[in-house]
Amino acid sequence: MSSLSFTERGGGGQPPARRVALLGSTGSIGRQTVEVLAAHPDAFTVVALAAGSNAGLLAEQAGRLRPRAVALGDEAALAGPDLPTGTERVGGSDALETLATRDDVDLVIVATSGVVSLRPVLAALRAGKVVATANKETLVAGGHLVMPLARDLAAAVAATDPGDPYASPLAWLRPIDSEHSAIWQCLVGESMTAVASLILTASGGPFLDSTPEEIATVTPAQALRHPTWSMGAKITIDSATLANKGLEVIEAHWLYDVDYDAIEVVIHPQSVVHSAVRFVDGSLKAQLGTPDMRLPIQYALTYPDRRPSPAAPPDLIATSRLDFRAPDEGRFPALRIAREAGHLGPRASAALIAADEVAVARFLDGSLDFPGIPRLLEAAVERFGVAGDAPDIDGLVALDLEVRAAFATTAFGART
Amino acid sequence: MSSLSFTERGGGGQPPARRVALLGSTGSIGRQTVEVLAAHPDAFTVVALAAGSNAGLLAEQAGRLRPRAVALGDEAALAGPDLPTGTERVGGSDALETLATRDDVDLVIVATSGVVSLRPVLAALRAGKVVATANKETLVAGGHLVMPLARDLAAAVAATDPGDPYASPLAWLRPIDSEHSAIWQCLVGESMTAVASLILTASGGPFLDSTPEEIATVTPAQALRHPTWSMGAKITIDSATLANKGLEVIEAHWLYDVDYDAIEVVIHPQSVVHSAVRFVDGSLKAQLGTPDMRLPIQYALTYPDRRPSPAAPPDLIATSRLDFRAPDEGRFPALRIAREAGHLGPRASAALIAADEVAVARFLDGSLDFPGIPRLLEAAVERFGVAGDAPDIDGLVALDLEVRAAFATTAFGART
Repeated sequence: MSSLSFTERGGGGQPPARRVALLGSTGSIGRQTVEVLAAHPDAFTVVALAAGSNAGLLAEQAGRLRPRAVALGDEAALAGPDLPTGTERVGGSDALETLATRDDVDLVIVATSGVVSLRPVLAALRAGKVVATANKETLVAGGHLVMPLARDLAAAVAATDPGDPYASPLAWLRPIDSEHSAIWQCLVGESMTAVASLILTASGGPFLDSTPEEIATVTPAQALRHPTWSMGAKITIDSATLANKGLEVIEAHWLYDVDYDAIEVVIHPQSVVHSAVRFVDGSLKAQLGTPDMRLPIQYALTYPDRRPSPAAPPDLIATSRLDFRAPDEGRFPALRIAREAGHLGPRASAALIAADEVAVARFLDGSLDFPGIPRLLEAAVERFGVAGDAPDIDGLVALDLEVRAAFATTAFGART
Repeated sequence: MSSLSFTERGGGGQPPARRVALLGSTGSIGRQTVEVLAAHPDAFTVVALAAGSNAGLLAEQAGRLRPRAVALGDEAALAGPDLPTGTERVGGSDALETLATRDDVDLVIVATSGVVSLRPVLAALRAGKVVATANKETLVAGGHLVMPLARDLAAAVAATDPGDPYASPLAWLRPIDSEHSAIWQCLVGESMTAVASLILTASGGPFLDSTPEEIATVTPAQALRHPTWSMGAKITIDSATLANKGLEVIEAHWLYDVDYDAIEVVIHPQSVVHSAVRFVDGSLKAQLGTPDMRLPIQYALTYPDRRPSPAAPPDLIATSRLDFRAPDEGRFPALRIAREAGHLGPRASAALIAADEVAVARFLDGSLDFPGIPRLLEAAVERFGVAGDAPDIDGLVALDLEVRAAFATTAFGART
């Protein structure tokens, strides 16, 4: 376990170049992470890149960033592309864990999807690496496994110097997500004992002002039009149902060790205030930004420092107006269901996030209507989340498969 | 000079009770400070209280807080009231400095008015005390004298531990003012090298939407109706002319060591966002609160900790909407004049704040019209601020008298 103090890590002066492994380099977050890494060659050494099947883009990224090692999920395709001379090709089912735990890696960026991403996250933390994660399962399904490791790493630093930026679990498990990055940024320099509540903002999605009748007949094309962020299909549908915000409530619970009752959700259609923290003295701190994922990605890489970024700053005068209102859990029940799953515990949360994958896929393929998404989520939480102990990593992977199988192949929620 | 590290001061655990001298205990800020101190008897020991002439209230406060010593500007009145047995009465022209530099005082709260308040501020900092100041002259007129002392105190701590909360000049010279407290709160845990600009918000005052013709005929009664804050007459008129915001720009320059070009002013009629900081990566942090001075007062006393406060937290959902727009320096020229004074240097800033006292008094007594306020400010800056070195404390006191005499007794700006 590496437990260098802030000063040994270069705190207070020029920090040493961080040696980075990027898992999932060819997806949306991965590609933007490559941009951030390439913009700061003095700050980062890219040691390893891993991707799923896009061998061409991986080779292009390798040519640009010159990693020591690469891995491709589709190993056959890896033989094909031209990699820079001397680049090591890592294969096998545990390739991600191998890259994440290399001696020459300090920071692992997890931009891969699915509950299987928990394996490299856990391996990296056990090896004393910093993990920056964009993978929602890390905390929604695995919060109970991941956070004790991050807290142990922080506690070891705090024992020497409680003021060290690495004395916080957030220094070890860093969120890449605009809302949680916002809360993290509001918390730097503050004590968690001073926090009264966390306030997650939500755009409210495209159906914020729709009637229940209109919501009942929403089409995939309508749901894919997000008002403020340009994102992938899954997360756009999750924003429309507010399931995304529900998952973020669960993430916040684990990441910041805050009770569910102290996590508020506020609808903020302009998506300029990314989230906020209310303190015990009545003060509220908010982080604002333009909708550009390069900002939270970069903050997760440069913490505790900040560096110039191509992300445009928010212009309060041009924006002119920021609105806030309460979420309507009647029209958007996914938020309530997620809170209930969080209260039930890790099995329920893991069932919820697996079920949401199935539900969104089935909505997009036309086999489930829009109100069927929260109905399926609630059914999954009730069926899989009520009984049983908190699963370990093998249990989580098994549960994930079980939930997907249960709802993908039955007649649940079929259009009538 | 006391330069205990954060840990020696109790950082990371329960901080020791801070021993406090409150100068100006019977004014608006002083009375609210007494409330804050009385609410946290475990955190503060009130060693000394000083007031101007309100002997009755001072005696009442002494009975409640049991200070070891009290001083009253009007020494004759001090003999009268019943003080608790054993309370020392301090007199003489240097009574405030005597109280501020006592060995048994750690933190001096300066809630007195006028440039003369710089004397106890400078004496306290030279004695290694923490100063929390609500006195605008401290930075507008005396920034060049005060900040080097605060920076030296911070540097001595930083030499041992750059992560110590006392390694920041703001730990030694603490602003009691909602805007500067907001910026300070946004800066904790951040490096000043990461700051791109400071954003001071302004309510815009009661004439935000008035035409130049309407502004020309504003009466004192109209100007005294502040839309969001309940404050004294002087500061309410300063809000109506935006002179107050101009003075805050100068304070920000000294307090945060930021160029004038990197200090923005944004009109925000709801006064919920108290101010904000834009960072080099495009992130913006804002502090929000209800208009309650007990919040910035308490933060200045409890930093780096926070404690429960009777200040109601802001309710984003109830507020529903926050608006922002650019200030109009055409209708509100005091903002431009203050920036120019800041650029000219300490003589000009000191002339500006002295002139503003005269201008507001003359507006309230009917001998100057509303547009005459910025005209008088500009004349004072041009006449006293262009030539000459940065004054020392005696020079500042002399300049203050000179400016007041020049504009109070001439026919400048008389109503025509």
